[in-house]
Amino acid sequence: MICANMLQVEIITIGDELLIGQVLDTNSAWMAQELNKSGFDVRYKTTVGDVEEDILDAFGRAFSRASVILVTGGIGPTKDDITKKALVQFFKTTLIFDNATLETIKEVVHGNHKILNGLTRNQAYVPAGSTVIQNKAGTAPVTWFEKEGKILVSMPGVPYEMKWAMTNEILPRLQMFFRKRGFIRHQTFWVKDYSESMLAIHLETFENELPASVKLAYLPASGLIRLRLTGKDSDETGLNETMGLQTGKLKALLSGSILSEEDDNPENILDRILKEKGLTLSLAESCTGGKLASLFTAIPGCSRYFKGGVVSYSNDAKRQILGVRLSDIKKYGAVSLAVVEQMVLGARRIFNSDCAIAISGIAGPDGGTEKNPVGTVWIAVSCKKRLIARKFLFSNSRENNILRSCNNGIRMLLDVID
Amino acid sequence: MICANMLQVEIITIGDELLIGQVLDTNSAWMAQELNKSGFDVRYKTTVGDVEEDILDAFGRAFSRASVILVTGGIGPTKDDITKKALVQFFKTTLIFDNATLETIKEVVHGNHKILNGLTRNQAYVPAGSTVIQNKAGTAPVTWFEKEGKILVSMPGVPYEMKWAMTNEILPRLQMFFRKRGFIRHQTFWVKDYSESMLAIHLETFENELPASVKLAYLPASGLIRLRLTGKDSDETGLNETMGLQTGKLKALLSGSILSEEDDNPENILDRILKEKGLTLSLAESCTGGKLASLFTAIPGCSRYFKGGVVSYSNDAKRQILGVRLSDIKKYGAVSLAVVEQMVLGARRIFNSDCAIAISGIAGPDGGTEKNPVGTVWIAVSCKKRLIARKFLFSNSRENNILRSCNNGIRMLLDVID
Repeated sequence: MICANMLQVEIITIGDELLIGQVLDTNSAWMAQELNKSGFDVRYKTTVGDVEEDILDAFGRAFSRASVILVTGGIGPTKDDITKKALVQFFKTTLIFDNATLETIKEVVHGNHKILNGLTRNQAYVPAGSTVIQNKAGTAPVTWFEKEGKILVSMPGVPYEMKWAMTNEILPRLQMFFRKRGFIRHQTFWVKDYSESMLAIHLETFENELPASVKLAYLPASGLIRLRLTGKDSDETGLNETMGLQTGKLKALLSGSILSEEDDNPENILDRILKEKGLTLSLAESCTGGKLASLFTAIPGCSRYFKGGVVSYSNDAKRQILGVRLSDIKKYGAVSLAVVEQMVLGARRIFNSDCAIAISGIAGPDGGTEKNPVGTVWIAVSCKKRLIARKFLFSNSRENNILRSCNNGIRMLLDVID
Repeated sequence: MICANMLQVEIITIGDELLIGQVLDTNSAWMAQELNKSGFDVRYKTTVGDVEEDILDAFGRAFSRASVILVTGGIGPTKDDITKKALVQFFKTTLIFDNATLETIKEVVHGNHKILNGLTRNQAYVPAGSTVIQNKAGTAPVTWFEKEGKILVSMPGVPYEMKWAMTNEILPRLQMFFRKRGFIRHQTFWVKDYSESMLAIHLETFENELPASVKLAYLPASGLIRLRLTGKDSDETGLNETMGLQTGKLKALLSGSILSEEDDNPENILDRILKEKGLTLSLAESCTGGKLASLFTAIPGCSRYFKGGVVSYSNDAKRQILGVRLSDIKKYGAVSLAVVEQMVLGARRIFNSDCAIAISGIAGPDGGTEKNPVGTVWIAVSCKKRLIARKFLFSNSRENNILRSCNNGIRMLLDVID
């Protein structure tokens, strides 16, 4: 049973740069994740430009349908930022100079070893009637409005500042404000061995028998499927029981094909297993060009197992650093079983690691041949005494080839770790 | 003068995974960029979940304010995808089985060496009255609706399929359909040496004197500012003249501080310069862990100058591969001038490159000391006979420290290339 009065959140992101695609909106996905963890359900996301009419329109619609409206962007010191003006208009108020805010701004500016100028000083003007949340990460104040039992919060669009404000101020305050609310539970499974439609056919009966409070979603991701079970209810105990029951059924149906029950990326799965087993990892990357290394090194604590990698973009590097025989490069080509095998062993040797992944391929758009068209990738993985290598033919997209190579390298290594 | 009847586009992205932040919406930014290049202005972006009521509501609002509505997502073969059902409802039509679509689906399925199953076959049911655009990149058909002189297009949410459909079918068709429309011009400058507010003060008079058809926007980006001038007009010649005039004024005001006039990333600036000058590059990365290499190798044709990189995450790797003296690591620590200098020279030597960037720092969240807190990063760059090194103190955020290290490494190398 879906709880009808579950608190609903709407996110409004403001900025012309978002509408012309100059900046990728990573904020709202992060906010949605954190809100979900705290039991808030995001129902709408809206993006508008720095246009007062459109901002006011978005505020009005959001107020008519959501309980909490979180607004990012448009509160910088420059003229193109007009969110503050729109807030004043929307809440029919005026700007007042706030000394406490000025003090915070001074602290931030001096902390960055800079001097306060007039434009930055003006950021201490805040809408009367709002609660100011002092921003310790930047100079634009966060403002919190309450009206008719609903809340609107305006915060900076700079990801670092937004995250600081959400974590330290906004989420705790929202939880205090709405003590009684509905509950949400997600359970994600990474599934291998199935295409999306084959998996749906396999799970047809299970899906038809799901209670109305639980939904199943399929998210294909470069050769794997992320399967997500979501339950919503106002009764926490009942929700936990329902989710436990359905999760158990699903696990029984998918037993050998579940790669992970955590909702994270393939590199996080490998990260956990390497830490658990105390195994070390090194990499030899050609066409993925450091992307695979960057996926692991984005994870805090990876230095416990990650010894390093070589981006051997040139044949010289393959030979000199990884010890690939030049004769084999000449005979078989750089994208070949012989070369990728020597790369994986070379990585294990020079980094003295238990496991390694080596990738050599043609990412495109150029460089394809009749024998090895764009998208051809050889991957070798090795762990202790095991080594396997496999040839793939992906796509014409450079970006896609790089990502699929990384994912498949990780999957293959997971298969040889025992 | 802004052209009032400029064609406006609204993007609607559909999927629960977007609202819970499980998947990052990269589609709409890419679509907005491409639409802009073709002279279409995106005014709203809306994200709704797989909820029929919300999808219908979004369609209705979009129809009331935009001329073109581009919809992504929710047309997969599984039950959670309900966009097709909502389209049928919205356009008051029914589903019909389309044999041409079935043929395309078969081609795609066979091309992937898979067998057609019932669920995938059902994707050949399309809304009556829509024009089907055959999807050569996947099994979900793209459907094009026309109503009251407005257009709605439904396409897959899978980025690869969406890009294929936009590039090959939708953009050309939109251009044919709307032959007469307003024009948009963007000119971006990467500016160094200024904070956002200092730059705004420097440009105050210029900004006040701008004609109404031209807007100036400030986008801070890890130590640099992206400054964007946008002009919109129905008269193309007039727009080009106005933009030429304002661009010239801005360049005169910023002369020595403009790093680039192209709207791309710092790595693209360096990419262009290295290609022009015929110089080669190598990298030695510690705390950035392959991220810097991945930025260059994402660019097609980087193999013309990029020889490779070492991700020397362990002290062993720094010593054995890059030739950093163990005594210096012990004496000064891995994050030190002595080590980063030897790393940059080591990279140049083993890859035999003209230029190199080396980065060693503490990305966090752990590993900080009193002397070197989290965010401490040493960067050395070298080109031909020049070498400079600098110490930075960034932030507490691992992600931010990695990105700022990459950007600053690139900026520093730009300063030593002559």
